[in-house]
Amino acid sequence: MSIVRADIPTLDGARCLVLGGGGFLGVHLANALVRQGAAARAFGRTLTNPDELDDRVCWSCGHFEDSAAVAEAVQGQEIVFHLLSGSVPGQPGQKPISDLEMNVSGTLRLLDICNAAAVRRVVFASSGGTVYGTADRCPIPEAAATDPISAYGVGKLAIEKYLALYHHLYGLEYSALRIANVYGPLQSPLKRQGVVAAMLDRALAGEPLEIWGTGEVVRDFVHVDDVVSALLLAATYDGPHRVMNVGSGAGLSINQVASDIEAIAGTSNVPRIYRAGRAADVPVNILDISLITRETPWQPRCSWEDGLRDTARWMAARARTRLV
Amino acid sequence: MSIVRADIPTLDGARCLVLGGGGFLGVHLANALVRQGAAARAFGRTLTNPDELDDRVCWSCGHFEDSAAVAEAVQGQEIVFHLLSGSVPGQPGQKPISDLEMNVSGTLRLLDICNAAAVRRVVFASSGGTVYGTADRCPIPEAAATDPISAYGVGKLAIEKYLALYHHLYGLEYSALRIANVYGPLQSPLKRQGVVAAMLDRALAGEPLEIWGTGEVVRDFVHVDDVVSALLLAATYDGPHRVMNVGSGAGLSINQVASDIEAIAGTSNVPRIYRAGRAADVPVNILDISLITRETPWQPRCSWEDGLRDTARWMAARARTRLV
Repeated sequence: MSIVRADIPTLDGARCLVLGGGGFLGVHLANALVRQGAAARAFGRTLTNPDELDDRVCWSCGHFEDSAAVAEAVQGQEIVFHLLSGSVPGQPGQKPISDLEMNVSGTLRLLDICNAAAVRRVVFASSGGTVYGTADRCPIPEAAATDPISAYGVGKLAIEKYLALYHHLYGLEYSALRIANVYGPLQSPLKRQGVVAAMLDRALAGEPLEIWGTGEVVRDFVHVDDVVSALLLAATYDGPHRVMNVGSGAGLSINQVASDIEAIAGTSNVPRIYRAGRAADVPVNILDISLITRETPWQPRCSWEDGLRDTARWMAARARTRLV
Repeated sequence: MSIVRADIPTLDGARCLVLGGGGFLGVHLANALVRQGAAARAFGRTLTNPDELDDRVCWSCGHFEDSAAVAEAVQGQEIVFHLLSGSVPGQPGQKPISDLEMNVSGTLRLLDICNAAAVRRVVFASSGGTVYGTADRCPIPEAAATDPISAYGVGKLAIEKYLALYHHLYGLEYSALRIANVYGPLQSPLKRQGVVAAMLDRALAGEPLEIWGTGEVVRDFVHVDDVVSALLLAATYDGPHRVMNVGSGAGLSINQVASDIEAIAGTSNVPRIYRAGRAADVPVNILDISLITRETPWQPRCSWEDGLRDTARWMAARARTRLV
């Protein structure tokens, strides 16, 4: 895993900033960038796994709301990867306005900074799982209606529209990837995002799995290595499509995910706990990835079976390290 | 004009708030509400034409950013008409973030207030002229892609999405009308919005007309009385369509509008002044109004010829009053 692939245009020598570079996806991306020969800086609130960040990546600790810190990090960069999000989908009790102020306002301040710093391109991690809402077709193509049922989704969609506006008004280049449910090594089991990590963690500890709703909701799980490849591609792709889906191309019910995880952990006999569903959960989400696979050399290469095994191995090793 | 029509369900006795009730469209709407027997309160920063507001309308002066003032105005209301906007399309030099903070954040605070006050429905004046951006078909149906090229348009679109979210999460009822270019009596000739009023004002004063760009951009001009009828309908319509276009169904080039105005004012021999176009202007905008005309008894009833004459008469009378 995490191999630089020959079919991806190189970012060798490019100065790249990863906003949200202390998180799960951000660390993977920053590491891949320096492995490609790019100069990478990672910016974020906390570095969850300090040992996992490649030594060649320059780490900046800062808040997204702190415009001076963001401006300092952006200074001199050519490509800005924007993976930051101050909220997660379906956070209970959170008012839409806090998501708006944290994520959307923050991104507009960022875009003004990028404009002033003559950044070449902004690559934005949008959310294929939330911008469409309850889709009328499946798999969901980019042209489908976008009617989010979570503040997180409305915020991501608004950011996409503002990116297009900044491109129109000021010529700022951008790519927005509507990414499905990412999973893989380094994902924290303690956050509400990342059902695979949360379940693996419990299963490996011999605990019963917790499922929100009936478990029949279907999600599109894509391995973090595949998402990193897509983000790298988006940094150099110069075709006409600025918004593209990134997923595995297939769906799994949460119950199926649970069964696969229980099989790996050997806990198939432990009963599951089913909890009340959440209003922000759509029943089915599988992304149509034909646009990106047609437009670029990108393909999802990591199968669910390999990806899950790989993630379980990492998580088991992490649990052992913790115990030592 | 301004007649209560038999085909519109009545709001008799309903407690209604008009946010932006001191402006052009707001005064017309508030007056129509009290004529229908509703109890109407108008809220806004300034009351442009105090003499024109019906005495039965209760006027509250306040800023949209002042949540306490908004909450006080919303208290006890059943229907809230949201016509407020702190910015206009294509305002030069204005950063998208100021539109976001003024209009979108303000609206989310409003929706929280409406929720807490158990308001029955929010009727929102969205913008048919900006939410679609450069449309790929004409006339533009509601299902067309929404890719605004102005901050104003992105803000209006984001508000539509948040309305749908509040409906989904909290059950707050809403209607959003995507309104074309409104014109008619009471429109100020001094604001950047309202090309008909601005041109009429200059023509009646014998001054040359100013046109942004080549004058070949096409717009859909709808008379304020027709828009008021649509807003009243939207307050009681209980069909499945929460977002509907409101326009005249036809387009006019700015040069055609200028010619019609020069003909009325008798200034056809005065040369026009053409100024550089604006990045936020789309070339053509004509709304497809088949959805609202199919779903409701609404029709645009005021022809361009009648509407323009009516507006010119009002403006000439206003100019005379000013001179006295």
